[in-house]
Amino acid sequence: MKHPSPASVTDDDLALLTDLYELTMLQAYWREGMHGRGVFSLYFRKLPAKRNFMLACGQQYVAELVTRLRFSPTSLQRLADVKVFEDDFLAWLEGFRFTGDIWTVPEGTPVFPSEPLMEVEAPIAEAQLLESLVMNQVQLETVLASKAVRLVMAANGRPVVDFGMRRMHGVDAAIRGVRAYRAAGLAGTSNVLGGLIHDLPLRGTMAHSYVLAHDNEQEAFRQFARLYPGTTLLVDTHDTLAGVRKVIDLMAAEPDLKVGAIRLDSGDLGPLARDARQLLDDAGHADVKIVASSGLNEQAIAELIGAGAPIDAFGVGTSMGVSEDAPVIDLSYKLVEYAGKPRVKHSPGKVNLPSRKQVYRRRDSQGFYRGDLIALRDEPVDDGEPLLTPLVKEGRIDDSALAEADRARERVQQALRHLPPALRQLEPADPPYPIELSEGLKRLQRQE
Amino acid sequence: MKHPSPASVTDDDLALLTDLYELTMLQAYWREGMHGRGVFSLYFRKLPAKRNFMLACGQQYVAELVTRLRFSPTSLQRLADVKVFEDDFLAWLEGFRFTGDIWTVPEGTPVFPSEPLMEVEAPIAEAQLLESLVMNQVQLETVLASKAVRLVMAANGRPVVDFGMRRMHGVDAAIRGVRAYRAAGLAGTSNVLGGLIHDLPLRGTMAHSYVLAHDNEQEAFRQFARLYPGTTLLVDTHDTLAGVRKVIDLMAAEPDLKVGAIRLDSGDLGPLARDARQLLDDAGHADVKIVASSGLNEQAIAELIGAGAPIDAFGVGTSMGVSEDAPVIDLSYKLVEYAGKPRVKHSPGKVNLPSRKQVYRRRDSQGFYRGDLIALRDEPVDDGEPLLTPLVKEGRIDDSALAEADRARERVQQALRHLPPALRQLEPADPPYPIELSEGLKRLQRQE
Repeated sequence: MKHPSPASVTDDDLALLTDLYELTMLQAYWREGMHGRGVFSLYFRKLPAKRNFMLACGQQYVAELVTRLRFSPTSLQRLADVKVFEDDFLAWLEGFRFTGDIWTVPEGTPVFPSEPLMEVEAPIAEAQLLESLVMNQVQLETVLASKAVRLVMAANGRPVVDFGMRRMHGVDAAIRGVRAYRAAGLAGTSNVLGGLIHDLPLRGTMAHSYVLAHDNEQEAFRQFARLYPGTTLLVDTHDTLAGVRKVIDLMAAEPDLKVGAIRLDSGDLGPLARDARQLLDDAGHADVKIVASSGLNEQAIAELIGAGAPIDAFGVGTSMGVSEDAPVIDLSYKLVEYAGKPRVKHSPGKVNLPSRKQVYRRRDSQGFYRGDLIALRDEPVDDGEPLLTPLVKEGRIDDSALAEADRARERVQQALRHLPPALRQLEPADPPYPIELSEGLKRLQRQE
Repeated sequence: MKHPSPASVTDDDLALLTDLYELTMLQAYWREGMHGRGVFSLYFRKLPAKRNFMLACGQQYVAELVTRLRFSPTSLQRLADVKVFEDDFLAWLEGFRFTGDIWTVPEGTPVFPSEPLMEVEAPIAEAQLLESLVMNQVQLETVLASKAVRLVMAANGRPVVDFGMRRMHGVDAAIRGVRAYRAAGLAGTSNVLGGLIHDLPLRGTMAHSYVLAHDNEQEAFRQFARLYPGTTLLVDTHDTLAGVRKVIDLMAAEPDLKVGAIRLDSGDLGPLARDARQLLDDAGHADVKIVASSGLNEQAIAELIGAGAPIDAFGVGTSMGVSEDAPVIDLSYKLVEYAGKPRVKHSPGKVNLPSRKQVYRRRDSQGFYRGDLIALRDEPVDDGEPLLTPLVKEGRIDDSALAEADRARERVQQALRHLPPALRQLEPADPPYPIELSEGLKRLQRQE
């Protein structure tokens, strides 16, 4: 079976984006007549070492997939070829629709250990089937948004641009990454398809290859700036400050030429930026900005800004593109209720919270988040804002919830104002953000 | 612009899988009449801290994409909306075809720092455009294959199965990961679509949710084993050894029931495996195998095997799925020649090798690789096997080269026999594998 394009997963194949055991369990549930409602809770147990919070992201996207998920004739044929599934089960799959409910925190919400980001409630087979796809998709955007917001915080108001497509894990990661980056507050992306699909401004400069292909660096600058007024010229192909001088000479020789910025992509960025700034200012080009790239991460950006480096914008690839220091979170998608009865796996040293839940976020008198309470969904709680709301009801996306969900970027900016200052640092907050369990939840835990 | 499916990148969008600057540079080359041939070399500067070699992977896949890459009417319309491209340039893009050559080491070849994995030679615009896509795709599979082979080496002949779909960065990574895992020598995958597309056997057991949805663990085992003779039962939902006893009791009560294996997914796997083995053997079930999963990486597997743990197969997710300890390599795609003239970026402390090259792998008298020589492509070299061969010629995939390229899995197995033993360890080899530069290359470097 040949695969035509990178991850050209069409709706035809959507239902096969799953692990084999989901399908074998489905067949077992179906054979055993187990059609009771199951509730699955999506959460993580602990934060990666360097994170003070995660930004939940991707839930809305996956909810849209789930409501459209069908077993197409080709996917059923492929499953028949696996020789594990009976004809009458495959016929049942043909009618498969997700008819359940999905509760989720809105995209862009800071979330903490043990808190459900999402709860899926449906006849158990329907909710079970989604496990692998929901985890894959929500983890991708959550990991990338949670990393990107650290760069945004480090840059402290200066624009951060995604240059990471080439370093990311395939094209789904690159494209969906832009979606997460938009939520996290990035200013732009170099990724053409990702930016067009997910509505983040396209940004780009020039590569060393363009300069090298010209016999003369200044000629490369001249041609590019003529074609793209206001462009950014890459000055470090041969010698950075010599490159800056060539830009200045060029502007002197051709006063009509507009150069928007220079880019530094190697060397010791702080001192180079200061020297370049001085050269530009001395030549009367205070308006030409300085863009830096080259192996940047949030620590490097914070240090550059802390040292007063006159860098106006940052291009970031590798470290952000794979969330290099924390490329994965230990998401779980656990059955917490079946047929009206709470369920919980007993794991020594691990907290598993039974039943349907709600998370309440409380604020102090200044409006800062002061802690969260995880409670049973229907337990009366009189303090705090409930975070989980139903995005999908009886298999249908709630349009008003969807419109609200689309405000992820704005929500992140608000959250950055309301998170306690210690959580907005790059280093781990001590103590961490307080998470409490409600009395009702503790009582249920004891009964299990 | 809405995106219908996860990374449903069809041929229509293929040409937009690029960074904006590639397209602005293309327009500049075109405007400047720069149609000379450019040679770009794909390589990495250094190995990640824990790797003794990387397995090159993904080049054949990306070559197939490249030869099919066109600017569709919809992609041209999208570019027109960006307001940076002139109509006559867009008209030129409409006729864009890759007409160049791609030389590559075969997939599954161990590669080392500075060695070109791939060289692309074409009119400069054609070769330039591919940069982001080639890097994204080759890095993905190379990183994943290079991690997976470490698990295969650690397991020392016991099967390793991919359970990582849920942890991987999106669906392209999950599906293409299976392609890389197949090359690396994995025994199977849980990923349904990935396994079907890339021809790796599907494997699966059961989840805790299945056990929890039943009021009685043994009943869950009975139902599942009846439906799937020879299946693997997950025994650690409540208490691992109690779970093993329930399996044994079940087999005693229903002698016709066939259980293939049990799976341990939590706790201290070594002692649990030994105790479980003892219980099974004492009950006369020496044929029931033990599968282990739960946060495994290559070190954990090596330790378990070193300690004599009676584990027959390993399921691996998180650590392998994102190559957790080294999720990225610093691939470069550098212009090394334009219009017949060698080009090289001078970077203090970095080696950039000009011109078209070849890599020769030399063996010692026992057949072990003893070192590589990087030479100019046309330089006479009389010792060693040349690794780069033309996979694409004048824009067409060479079918015989393609058939040869399809032997990646076999090639990895051969390589594992011929790599010096120190390189087949999990720890860094000291000294590292020797890489030399030819006299011709050194002479050219001095001239630059």
